[in-house]
Amino acid sequence: MRARIVNPFLDSVVNVLGMMALLDVTPGTAELKDGFVARGDISGIIGMSSGASGGSMAITFPKAVVFQVAFRMLGDEVNEINDDVIDLVGELTNMISGGAKAKFDEIGINIGMATPVVVCGESHEIHHKSSGKSIILPFGTEAGEFYVEVCFDE
Amino acid sequence: MRARIVNPFLDSVVNVLGMMALLDVTPGTAELKDGFVARGDISGIIGMSSGASGGSMAITFPKAVVFQVAFRMLGDEVNEINDDVIDLVGELTNMISGGAKAKFDEIGINIGMATPVVVCGESHEIHHKSSGKSIILPFGTEAGEFYVEVCFDE
Repeated sequence: MRARIVNPFLDSVVNVLGMMALLDVTPGTAELKDGFVARGDISGIIGMSSGASGGSMAITFPKAVVFQVAFRMLGDEVNEINDDVIDLVGELTNMISGGAKAKFDEIGINIGMATPVVVCGESHEIHHKSSGKSIILPFGTEAGEFYVEVCFDE
Repeated sequence: MRARIVNPFLDSVVNVLGMMALLDVTPGTAELKDGFVARGDISGIIGMSSGASGGSMAITFPKAVVFQVAFRMLGDEVNEINDDVIDLVGELTNMISGGAKAKFDEIGINIGMATPVVVCGESHEIHHKSSGKSIILPFGTEAGEFYVEVCFDE
């Protein structure tokens, strides 16, 4: 079940960042978020639902990585978290969850998505409150790692 | 339309905190989040959907207020954001959005809810990415103000 949940997100992250930011992204090993908490400076969060059960996805970037993504997508050097960067993280969150949704559709799982929320603030951490375990997917880039977290009701 | 969206949340916040924390909560004036950004140390965020449109709600507490709420709900002095406080904010987010959902039901608006996510980190800020304006509701307590933000697609 875990791979069935993880793989659509994993593929979608690689596709979206490759396509939108021409950024090579190397997936690390998915792990349960037991104790380990990803800290980042900006996160996109989106709620999801599938039938009676719900879940959430978050994508969390340290500044260095989001500035690199923004530079590649906007064409300008970026060195602060401004409205453009916030919008861009909201859009990426939408695209990544939308891409995962399409993959879930292919295997007969219908996922509904809420609208994303973007959180900014140094070293914040995210706690998912669905009943299942949180799964954390690290991704390597030339500017460092970022994280996608997924949690669904069991 | 704005009062129709705001009032269910406003009533629900006052009810839930009055009932669960025996905390007197004084609603301030709802305003559009233009420029003004609420900063807090811990936030509960939940995605919502209504038909084809989506939205999100966040409840953002400074430490002093969440510690007061936790003290009243848990019965112990609390002076750090620990797992109990994180769980409590997740629960309050569920109860407040659930209470608002019930009020919406009464006026014939069916709202679906995702599961909540809790964000911790000093002075973080939240940006809603639905197409409508974000509305911010300040609430006064004996320990200071906290904020509820609501944003729906237009």
